[in-house]
Amino acid sequence: MDDGYASDSTALLVVDPYNDFLSEGGKLWPRAKAVAEQVGLLDHMRQVLAATRSRGIRTLFVPHRRTAPGDYDGWAFPSPSQAATRGARIFEAGSWGGEFHPDFQPLDGELRVQEHWSASGFANTDLDLLLKQHRIAKIVLIGMRANTCIDTTARFAQELGYHVTLVRDAIAAFRPAEMTATFEVNAPTYAHAVVTADEFTEALPPAGTAS
Amino acid sequence: MDDGYASDSTALLVVDPYNDFLSEGGKLWPRAKAVAEQVGLLDHMRQVLAATRSRGIRTLFVPHRRTAPGDYDGWAFPSPSQAATRGARIFEAGSWGGEFHPDFQPLDGELRVQEHWSASGFANTDLDLLLKQHRIAKIVLIGMRANTCIDTTARFAQELGYHVTLVRDAIAAFRPAEMTATFEVNAPTYAHAVVTADEFTEALPPAGTAS
Amino acid sequence: MDDGYASDSTALLVVDPYNDFLSEGGKLWPRAKAVAEQVGLLDHMRQVLAATRSRGIRTLFVPHRRTAPGDYDGWAFPSPSQAATRGARIFEAGSWGGEFHPDFQPLDGELRVQEHWSASGFANTDLDLLLKQHRIAKIVLIGMRANTCIDTTARFAQELGYHVTLVRDAIAAFRPAEMTATFEVNAPTYAHAVVTADEFTEALPPAGTAS
Amino acid sequence: MDDGYASDSTALLVVDPYNDFLSEGGKLWPRAKAVAEQVGLLDHMRQVLAATRSRGIRTLFVPHRRTAPGDYDGWAFPSPSQAATRGARIFEAGSWGGEFHPDFQPLDGELRVQEHWSASGFANTDLDLLLKQHRIAKIVLIGMRANTCIDTTARFAQELGYHVTLVRDAIAAFRPAEMTATFEVNAPTYAHAVVTADEFTEALPPAGTAS
Repeated sequence: MDDGYASDSTALLVVDPYNDFLSEGGKLWPRAKAVAEQVGLLDHMRQVLAATRSRGIRTLFVPHRRTAPGDYDGWAFPSPSQAATRGARIFEAGSWGGEFHPDFQPLDGELRVQEHWSASGFANTDLDLLLKQHRIAKIVLIGMRANTCIDTTARFAQELGYHVTLVRDAIAAFRPAEMTATFEVNAPTYAHAVVTADEFTEALPPAGTAS
Repeated sequence: MDDGYASDSTALLVVDPYNDFLSEGGKLWPRAKAVAEQVGLLDHMRQVLAATRSRGIRTLFVPHRRTAPGDYDGWAFPSPSQAATRGARIFEAGSWGGEFHPDFQPLDGELRVQEHWSASGFANTDLDLLLKQHRIAKIVLIGMRANTCIDTTARFAQELGYHVTLVRDAIAAFRPAEMTATFEVNAPTYAHAVVTADEFTEALPPAGTAS
Repeated sequence: MDDGYASDSTALLVVDPYNDFLSEGGKLWPRAKAVAEQVGLLDHMRQVLAATRSRGIRTLFVPHRRTAPGDYDGWAFPSPSQAATRGARIFEAGSWGGEFHPDFQPLDGELRVQEHWSASGFANTDLDLLLKQHRIAKIVLIGMRANTCIDTTARFAQELGYHVTLVRDAIAAFRPAEMTATFEVNAPTYAHAVVTADEFTEALPPAGTAS
Repeated sequence: MDDGYASDSTALLVVDPYNDFLSEGGKLWPRAKAVAEQVGLLDHMRQVLAATRSRGIRTLFVPHRRTAPGDYDGWAFPSPSQAATRGARIFEAGSWGGEFHPDFQPLDGELRVQEHWSASGFANTDLDLLLKQHRIAKIVLIGMRANTCIDTTARFAQELGYHVTLVRDAIAAFRPAEMTATFEVNAPTYAHAVVTADEFTEALPPAGTAS
């Protein structure tokens, strides 16, 4: 992994850690639960976040648009995902489902990126700017959902010139076929590293050291 | 002006209509007042907004970042404008100065674009996406400030393929030299039309007609 | 399909129609041949191109970077695909493999977009600008390769606000799993239409009519 | 100037060094000559380029589109500059005017960015990608023309998160008012440094040292 995950040029991106995705009672949890439990999603997300925080690696939260009244009104071409999100009021603004899971809350100094309307955390947001202003060259992705927001954000990152790492057991999906599509078929063409949470944390410099 | 300002493909962009810029008591009003009064800024902004609303031309509000605690912390290269904004807490979130002037409030169905960190309403925001989803090809700019947010937003728009109109007496600045730079020197190279509020409203189709 | 594929707002994007991908003797043809022949790739590409040309639908050629000496030298993070492309000198500039297949040559007035370095025809090119200047709202994708340049270009298009159609039997890949990933798993989340060449041509207005 | 112009994170951008702009006999030289000679444009461009080359600072050439037959055909909204460029066939492909001035030729390993259609070297090109892949954080601009390609490229760079330096006597324009607009009115809002060629070269580390 070339010069490794130096704390001054690496960032962790926590993608869409909403209750609707990650918590019992969330609107999408029933669809995500089987894969999430099979890979150990929440434990691995906690493991990665604790490990990066202890090394001083910067955390950015990359949230999907929280659905609000009027969203998509008059849009010429909402995507199938957007049409479904609108109908079910996924991540509804002001609702519990549109809050982050309690274990994935920004600490002081951690950044909340502008909300993305579709699947890329970079498209139509300030993510690229914030990464540049913090001199970040490598991003590490965890969260939801493998073949949509994770895959698309990762593809955009690679096109923008970033080094991209996916932590495959800190990411889940609705179906095993989505995991296969992302981690077996697609990521090997664009991602610089696809690792497990254990492999990733072992690749970090020892906690407490500055890089 | 080719096929004119058809209501289904034209949008009005109201840039940074904050009290800090436009209202007696605003932090930047003392610097803007002389030019604003000389061109009749507020009256012309009202005139243009009323005229476009009456034709069913869509309005988008294009707001600068409202300054919040922690903004710019750790940034490698804040610009001179950003450094000044931070120091003076311009457009401060939660303050009166960071609210829109009472005459420039979004109505139902009008859009509030994501906030821009610097001078371009397009950079790191969803403005281009929203324009595309509403099939907008021509944008008309009013608001503040001529040589910063107006000029940069207009340059980005032209690079993105939009038709750009500046309403020169519905835009102001801090100094006459800034107006000269924008309207005499620069806009003639990139803008498709530089007009007065009267010229613009006369170029519109009659109110009450659909295009 | 809402208002259909009007000739003045629809464009066909022919992605990477290089001999290296599509022709006997091309460097990647041995890897693509099985899927290509199974779906009838070349015949369906010809069918779609002839159908759109006869309706006056604009064609844009969306070519990958033709590999040249010095490419990627000193790059911090070439992707796995880029590393492979470099090593094998895929689409080499000045070589037959880096020329378009004889049946997919731009006619007068058809556009050749700037070359893309990775998988998105939009990233770091003038594709979005050219589409806007020609008032295109809907794009139709054919060519190579399903889960890389087609998928990534389509995802970018959707994020940018375009209507996206994939013609699934005018697109191929190296393995059936890549076709499954693209057309069964991923495209249904972001694409507005996934159709066969027959379905697409039947959805077009009759040839010879203007829209 | 914070940590200075380190050779591994600084790049020189030579903007539009075409014969049409810089050479006796060029189509735009008659318009540029007075300002160019007044600031010592060519000597200062040579001075800056020699100084950065001797420090191992990377050079990128940032060229405008070389006009070719068919350019802008069917475009909805060419800008005033584009209309003029087209009419006069400025920087014509295949012509002497569309070649770089002999003193500003890329050496081995120096990069030629994709051509820009309008005034920003970043818009619709691979400039941002190439800078990222070479880990560049600071850019230094020289060339033509102050209030168009230099100003717009600089504004885009700042919005993208780069540190921006303008070398004011290695940049010219058609009229003194354009120089005033750029260097007195606008650049102080967005540029991190506006310096003379002498000031810039003095701020560089001694030649022959690696940073």
